[in-house]
Amino acid sequence: MALFVQKYGGTSVGSIERIQSVAQRIAQSVADGNQVVAVVSAMSGETNRLTAIGTEVSRQPIAREMDVLLASGEQVTTALLSMALGDHGIQARSYLGNQVKISTDSSHRRARIEHIDASNLLGEIERGIVPVVAGFQGVNSAGDITTLGRGGSDTTAVALAVALKADECQIFTDVHGVYTADPRLVENARLLETITFEEMLELASLGSKVLSQRSVEFAGKYATPIRVLSSFSSAFPGTLITTEEANMEKPIVSGIAYSRDEAKLTLLGVPDIPGVAAKILAPVGAENIEVDMIVQNVGADDTTDFTFTVKRDDYEHALLVLEKIRGQLGAREVQGDSKIVKVSVVGVGMRSHAGVASIMFSALAEESINIQMISTSEIKISIVIAEKYLELAVRAVHDAFDLSKEAVVEEKI
Amino acid sequence: MALFVQKYGGTSVGSIERIQSVAQRIAQSVADGNQVVAVVSAMSGETNRLTAIGTEVSRQPIAREMDVLLASGEQVTTALLSMALGDHGIQARSYLGNQVKISTDSSHRRARIEHIDASNLLGEIERGIVPVVAGFQGVNSAGDITTLGRGGSDTTAVALAVALKADECQIFTDVHGVYTADPRLVENARLLETITFEEMLELASLGSKVLSQRSVEFAGKYATPIRVLSSFSSAFPGTLITTEEANMEKPIVSGIAYSRDEAKLTLLGVPDIPGVAAKILAPVGAENIEVDMIVQNVGADDTTDFTFTVKRDDYEHALLVLEKIRGQLGAREVQGDSKIVKVSVVGVGMRSHAGVASIMFSALAEESINIQMISTSEIKISIVIAEKYLELAVRAVHDAFDLSKEAVVEEKI
Repeated sequence: MALFVQKYGGTSVGSIERIQSVAQRIAQSVADGNQVVAVVSAMSGETNRLTAIGTEVSRQPIAREMDVLLASGEQVTTALLSMALGDHGIQARSYLGNQVKISTDSSHRRARIEHIDASNLLGEIERGIVPVVAGFQGVNSAGDITTLGRGGSDTTAVALAVALKADECQIFTDVHGVYTADPRLVENARLLETITFEEMLELASLGSKVLSQRSVEFAGKYATPIRVLSSFSSAFPGTLITTEEANMEKPIVSGIAYSRDEAKLTLLGVPDIPGVAAKILAPVGAENIEVDMIVQNVGADDTTDFTFTVKRDDYEHALLVLEKIRGQLGAREVQGDSKIVKVSVVGVGMRSHAGVASIMFSALAEESINIQMISTSEIKISIVIAEKYLELAVRAVHDAFDLSKEAVVEEKI
Repeated sequence: MALFVQKYGGTSVGSIERIQSVAQRIAQSVADGNQVVAVVSAMSGETNRLTAIGTEVSRQPIAREMDVLLASGEQVTTALLSMALGDHGIQARSYLGNQVKISTDSSHRRARIEHIDASNLLGEIERGIVPVVAGFQGVNSAGDITTLGRGGSDTTAVALAVALKADECQIFTDVHGVYTADPRLVENARLLETITFEEMLELASLGSKVLSQRSVEFAGKYATPIRVLSSFSSAFPGTLITTEEANMEKPIVSGIAYSRDEAKLTLLGVPDIPGVAAKILAPVGAENIEVDMIVQNVGADDTTDFTFTVKRDDYEHALLVLEKIRGQLGAREVQGDSKIVKVSVVGVGMRSHAGVASIMFSALAEESINIQMISTSEIKISIVIAEKYLELAVRAVHDAFDLSKEAVVEEKI
């Protein structure tokens, strides 16, 4: 008998009918002899609706109260799913964050889970009850409701799976699993059977929206397997995210991620002296602007060009900051471009293969796509290109690594 | 400095704008030097909406989960009002049932408050904070959310006022206070300045919808004054419901209530032997049908006619029950009428005055309105008449007791 934590996101519980099919699905899992703990998000659209009325009622919405407001969304879904399960003869009980209980710090709207007391739930599970837990919410030491921020329900599910020592944390979404590339862009993208935590972490942080980064990090830390699968079709086994095992196939490249949420800023003609990077990035950081890729080219005349990328929302703000510091740094000019995208290839097999970059860059060169920036880590290579080339680039790289076919394993190279 | 518990019902918090005016109103109370605890209902329509999706998702909605579902309505309002108060420079904090905490029994959907631990709130009030408490909800000893049933937010407000030893429990509604009769029916109905708990209790139980019966009962038990006033206009002082004081004016009749939610059933030709009433009412009660007025007329031929009233929703059900037991009781016939109403006059002065009934009955006779049933208590007289006479009867009785003028006090009679 396996214990599964099953997380159903907003789209999966987006209507009465969908909640009823989720109940059907859980009932099937139980009939198959498994123990199930469900974690649910608010019905799709509900969190946005609540946020809108919160910001409408007050010029400066108080974070503590926004959390009380938002937490009501998941509360509604837990109750509805518990009742729908009742119709299938399943004894279910809703659990809110404070009832589980899921203890967090006091950072309202982006709280971090500090501790989960799983003893209540374990007792319920032993008695054959299916606990239906509200995702996204917890309670701080003062007894106030907190919420975990974007992707919070995934985090709840993974943290519960860790606390309950579950066999698998199953994340039900509106996709069939993790693909080698976005199937909307790449027709022959392939569904991955397995992927490592490390790879998934890179994919999550690189703009693939299947799972939140925090939840993958957390599951990886405790080696709790996550399975991503579709809540609308049971025909696919989904993708298992797990630790890298000795006998696991190690494809050089597992998948390709991209992000449109990018903008690039360059400070031209900066004096090439020690400490200049800090002088540029400190005032940017002070304005809460997150910097992603950083590249510095050494120039010919004792000056250098300094380029970095930020999220598009921060682009105008970052431009203003650079204009302000340009004079005191003695830099020549500020340039910027918000029509850029980031494309990344990810794979644990890359560690032992130097050839990956050249395959990627050749594929792009063949399509005459100019690479503006490059950044690498142990298991990923990211490049920045003009936005108009996005689809072409992703398809070209996907083909270059033959990702539509079964995994290219290390031994074959 | 006075401490007020202010309860705002669904209509008073029915939109963002109205929540903002409630915040304005509370801010004014605080500026006037008062300490305030707010109790709020769900936004109007919200409880019905939640009930509808709950009954849609499951054929047999589980009471425990319906409470979790419904409680989210008040949760939303407490958060919104707390944020709106922030805009007025008022430090407010939302409190849910389990946070106060309001301990109830485990009867989901109609729980009764067993204990309120007011120490948290008292501390907050001392620190100048306005607690905004979710009405209608509590928590049982297992930590499950419970709701208090119809009129539950009034009960929460009164129970809090008692626990906090508040100077007044102010119930803000969409009417200006308690009238001598329904102002929609009687044009010259007069707003009452004061009324006793006893009188208000009879009015509440008799179909006047201003306040729930339980809340009046509770306030009366602990002699905590309730003031009913309008949330839309501060021009009226409302009606103070309080204990009967020695020097208080004792009008013979304080007001007139009516209820359309009535139906009448008669069993004709029942053998007039001891125990027959119990034989009729026991099976009715066994079907959870509530019986209100009961009248038994002694017939000429050792038989009797037995009549009682029920709520209209229970009418068809009660008819079936009577048809079933008619044979075994040896009764002749079952008759019924669902087009009847109840009209009642209420007043503490009635205790010492026998003449009230004759004034009432004369007024009805003058309008040729036939009285079908009569029931009296120490401070009220109720009659049943055909529904079509309702408005006429209420106006005639209102005029007969001169209620549009200042109270007729005992001494003047």
